[in-house]
Amino acid sequence: MSKVAVIMGSKSDMPVMQDAIDILKEFDIDVEVDIVSAHRTPEKLFDFSKNAHTRGIKVIIAGAGGAAHLPGMVASLSPLPIIGVPVKSSNSIDGWDSVLSILQMPGGVPVATVALNGAKNAGILAAQILGSSDQNILDKIVNYKEDLKTKVFDSAKDL
Amino acid sequence: MSKVAVIMGSKSDMPVMQDAIDILKEFDIDVEVDIVSAHRTPEKLFDFSKNAHTRGIKVIIAGAGGAAHLPGMVASLSPLPIIGVPVKSSNSIDGWDSVLSILQMPGGVPVATVALNGAKNAGILAAQILGSSDQNILDKIVNYKEDLKTKVFDSAKDL
Amino acid sequence: MSKVAVIMGSKSDMPVMQDAIDILKEFDIDVEVDIVSAHRTPEKLFDFSKNAHTRGIKVIIAGAGGAAHLPGMVASLSPLPIIGVPVKSSNSIDGWDSVLSILQMPGGVPVATVALNGAKNAGILAAQILGSSDQNILDKIVNYKEDLKTKVFDSAKDL
Amino acid sequence: MSKVAVIMGSKSDMPVMQDAIDILKEFDIDVEVDIVSAHRTPEKLFDFSKNAHTRGIKVIIAGAGGAAHLPGMVASLSPLPIIGVPVKSSNSIDGWDSVLSILQMPGGVPVATVALNGAKNAGILAAQILGSSDQNILDKIVNYKEDLKTKVFDSAKDL
Amino acid sequence: MSKVAVIMGSKSDMPVMQDAIDILKEFDIDVEVDIVSAHRTPEKLFDFSKNAHTRGIKVIIAGAGGAAHLPGMVASLSPLPIIGVPVKSSNSIDGWDSVLSILQMPGGVPVATVALNGAKNAGILAAQILGSSDQNILDKIVNYKEDLKTKVFDSAKDL
Amino acid sequence: MSKVAVIMGSKSDMPVMQDAIDILKEFDIDVEVDIVSAHRTPEKLFDFSKNAHTRGIKVIIAGAGGAAHLPGMVASLSPLPIIGVPVKSSNSIDGWDSVLSILQMPGGVPVATVALNGAKNAGILAAQILGSSDQNILDKIVNYKEDLKTKVFDSAKDL
Amino acid sequence: MSKVAVIMGSKSDMPVMQDAIDILKEFDIDVEVDIVSAHRTPEKLFDFSKNAHTRGIKVIIAGAGGAAHLPGMVASLSPLPIIGVPVKSSNSIDGWDSVLSILQMPGGVPVATVALNGAKNAGILAAQILGSSDQNILDKIVNYKEDLKTKVFDSAKDL
Amino acid sequence: MSKVAVIMGSKSDMPVMQDAIDILKEFDIDVEVDIVSAHRTPEKLFDFSKNAHTRGIKVIIAGAGGAAHLPGMVASLSPLPIIGVPVKSSNSIDGWDSVLSILQMPGGVPVATVALNGAKNAGILAAQILGSSDQNILDKIVNYKEDLKTKVFDSAKDL
Repeated sequence: MSKVAVIMGSKSDMPVMQDAIDILKEFDIDVEVDIVSAHRTPEKLFDFSKNAHTRGIKVIIAGAGGAAHLPGMVASLSPLPIIGVPVKSSNSIDGWDSVLSILQMPGGVPVATVALNGAKNAGILAAQILGSSDQNILDKIVNYKEDLKTKVFDSAKDL
Repeated sequence: MSKVAVIMGSKSDMPVMQDAIDILKEFDIDVEVDIVSAHRTPEKLFDFSKNAHTRGIKVIIAGAGGAAHLPGMVASLSPLPIIGVPVKSSNSIDGWDSVLSILQMPGGVPVATVALNGAKNAGILAAQILGSSDQNILDKIVNYKEDLKTKVFDSAKDL
Repeated sequence: MSKVAVIMGSKSDMPVMQDAIDILKEFDIDVEVDIVSAHRTPEKLFDFSKNAHTRGIKVIIAGAGGAAHLPGMVASLSPLPIIGVPVKSSNSIDGWDSVLSILQMPGGVPVATVALNGAKNAGILAAQILGSSDQNILDKIVNYKEDLKTKVFDSAKDL
Repeated sequence: MSKVAVIMGSKSDMPVMQDAIDILKEFDIDVEVDIVSAHRTPEKLFDFSKNAHTRGIKVIIAGAGGAAHLPGMVASLSPLPIIGVPVKSSNSIDGWDSVLSILQMPGGVPVATVALNGAKNAGILAAQILGSSDQNILDKIVNYKEDLKTKVFDSAKDL
Repeated sequence: MSKVAVIMGSKSDMPVMQDAIDILKEFDIDVEVDIVSAHRTPEKLFDFSKNAHTRGIKVIIAGAGGAAHLPGMVASLSPLPIIGVPVKSSNSIDGWDSVLSILQMPGGVPVATVALNGAKNAGILAAQILGSSDQNILDKIVNYKEDLKTKVFDSAKDL
Repeated sequence: MSKVAVIMGSKSDMPVMQDAIDILKEFDIDVEVDIVSAHRTPEKLFDFSKNAHTRGIKVIIAGAGGAAHLPGMVASLSPLPIIGVPVKSSNSIDGWDSVLSILQMPGGVPVATVALNGAKNAGILAAQILGSSDQNILDKIVNYKEDLKTKVFDSAKDL
Repeated sequence: MSKVAVIMGSKSDMPVMQDAIDILKEFDIDVEVDIVSAHRTPEKLFDFSKNAHTRGIKVIIAGAGGAAHLPGMVASLSPLPIIGVPVKSSNSIDGWDSVLSILQMPGGVPVATVALNGAKNAGILAAQILGSSDQNILDKIVNYKEDLKTKVFDSAKDL
Repeated sequence: MSKVAVIMGSKSDMPVMQDAIDILKEFDIDVEVDIVSAHRTPEKLFDFSKNAHTRGIKVIIAGAGGAAHLPGMVASLSPLPIIGVPVKSSNSIDGWDSVLSILQMPGGVPVATVALNGAKNAGILAAQILGSSDQNILDKIVNYKEDLKTKVFDSAKDL
């Protein structure tokens, strides 16, 4: 049973969102992936968001570009923690539109926003959320951070 | 029967949105007014948007601030022309968030966006849309433009 | 007789504005296309804008880049609903200039602004405006939205 | 034993950060509050961040203004999910500095960023994170969302 | 006979534009002042702009706020040097809209843009333009610059 | 004897500034061209600016990128009208730095700013300034504008 | 003999720049203060900048607003380290103009830029520069940082 | 013994930071180079920053991109003058994130910020800081500035 759902507004967001899927697999966390468009499939948005927590999903990662309403609308409909990934799409105004559309949610309906195109961090954050009640995952996060450290030390040696 | 619906995400948007209501009344166009929050009342958003055109509504004006998803979500669900009013709310980042969240809609789902806090222009635009098939309203728009002209000439005389 | 006019400030705007023409043709709506420059052919701007509604035009789509004055000046001279398309031209400051020059119209003279390079949405919005008094076009809009939905479902199957 | 820590870079952030404390108390979640300055008390930052998860803390909320390094540095040192609140401080450049300093974290070290001054949403997000493994808190979130809905319906009745 | 015309889009621009009038009077240059709105009095805009150079006007200063089309449209219609003053009006997005609407003119139709609310500098620039062929005015500019210098030296003495 | 000086902060600005030289030659106006760096040759900046008007120069066009101080410093030292061209250089922050460094001059010291990379318009503006006291040049400007018009009409025929 | 000079473009910058003077006095470092305007007193700018290092000045702090050319021009003329303070003046575009005019200096001519209105930090930075060759001042910096720490701990106790 | 340390957050910053190393070598100043990541090697950050001044380092240059916390955190831990270089990294929002994360430090903890990607100027600034107490280096700076001048004069001859 998947614990994290990774959804995106359009198939064109996949190259960015793949980073979230990859890192979650690296942490051995089951992921389900789907395309859910707030603007083109609003009924699917409703069904997905209303029921995700009843299917065992614990965290939802939602990526979208431009006037990115997907993460906020999922947050409106689901009680789960929602992570929003602003995607820099082709006609975006330098990414500012997706960043602000996802970040600036009104009081009462949070979206945990990560950096522009920051799908990898969305995956890590989802793992950290699961890790807050799962010692096994928490240990993996600790190890992951040790690996980051080692890589920097190695790259410093190359100078 | 109302032809134009003016909706807004929160009662706090009313001081801005009142301008749309006032100008529509000045043009003798019936208006209905409601609060519909994309983030707090998503089911009402669905019902309202799905059915507006079956109740005789011809144009919907939607105002919201911050990560303003209301106009775009109504546009997702209704075949009617949707006019979006970016509202400069208290914790807004200078209004950029609501402007970009409403303006930068993806291909397929337009929102006719007006200026920041430009509810008056939203009302006039709704009247122009009705006027494109109603000579009586078109005449009123022509007269309204004449009045604008006269006021400028009068203010120039005062110099 | 054309019901929608698509005009642009320069021939170089054509690759962007073609999207509006294409989608209107898809909806079987007659379109006339012209180049009207606010800054280089102001007399043509006047003649075009003053007379469009007397020739049966119901909606005007105007695209321009940089300090884009065309949509606003047409709106100044015509009682019709005007749709503005900000075009990201070569020396633009990331498109902000055309977006703000078109969007931030003063009270009394609205321009229905769509996203940067959003000519397709301008075409759909024009169809929606005609559809608000033409059941045949409204039905096409409803079908168009169904098609959008189907395409998303199909792309989700490919995952 | 507190499950959520709310820290901030300066006592002057308290009026904003109080919203996080209040909403967490509303959800009956134990909170500890402290001032930890990345720039003025770096050793305290280290001690706090390294040990929080060993003391039973499950989520850390960190608020700061200007070049806001607190949330990112805590994220660097702790395996827990970190929620960052950009605070609009007095000499901020319209809040853009704290928003970008918190949001744009590099790959590997996420911060769950909420809206400018969005401490209330930070508190709700912390509750949702706990709720993803605690049915009791999840139920409270569901009820909270119902209450939001009721308030909007009530405010609509007042129109 | 006036040599410089100072026009503005609305009476509400007068407090800003007065600075241009005052400094021109200080240089003993005849000024005519009028309200000409690109969006509300387009015919007046045409008449004024087409004929200004035949009435002896040598320089036109035009101030406007928001989507400020006045300076650019005058430049479209008149062969004279046009100075544009971006005015920070009430619903402006921090003045960026008027600055970019005036500054970013397309090739072929320049507007000499000054700082936001910089009407005083517009007046001085008009004097400098006249001074480039009028030794008397050029001398006044030289003296004016000497006075600026003296004032700074005096203020330094006060420290 | 040259009437217009075109200066720039670096040889790398030449591809942009060439447009000013070309259009001035098209108007048969003598131009002198030089490299004057505010930051690397401050003494040359002083000599050039102090003496330009005594050598018969009537207008100075100055182009620079980044923290562009050249136009403003020339304006500080010369009584002539100074036209500033913001150049989008390689490490510029999207051109905003040169635009704001040139445009936002303090009261007393104007720079006539044109669009980003708008050297062509700087040349036309210089011609218009000379034309305000030279009927021959004014006539050329009028003809130039007619040519612009013809080109638009021709491009419209091609549609 | 003063070791640090604090200069500013206008007397109106004094309320901001006073913070630099105060902190330098707190470190017992002699300061001289003057008004030097790049745009209104360019000769004084030259004399001051050319000679400062021959008079024993070791660091120059220069504050200015709008199109702030003072720090960069001093850096052009002096071999000393120059610290620039962007001042948010009245007609500034939210401070962006002074920040970018000071920060974005071309290769070869650095200005050490501090935060908007960050004169206090300019003073501390000047002390640190002196401290890099003066153990006494370095010790004071170390103590100052300890005091910052103590104040944060005390404010945390008040919670 | 090295007098200047050049550190960066990631090996990918090296192409930009090399400019600092090169110019310091040109001035015959010993440089040590290292990779220190605030977010991935926080303990190394602590050790490096706490001890640099005890090892004879006089100035630290720190470059980083995105939410760039390295320069500010080093400034938090070291009494030395810290020069920050904002690096425009791949997923940066046009460089604004690194600029604001480095520049907008709170009162008490300055970072001497240079232009986006301005590592060359960081190197020169470090030399100037050493030069404020070392006549030999000061003389080199004076010569360097003379060379800049000569190069501009030479490039002007090529026109």
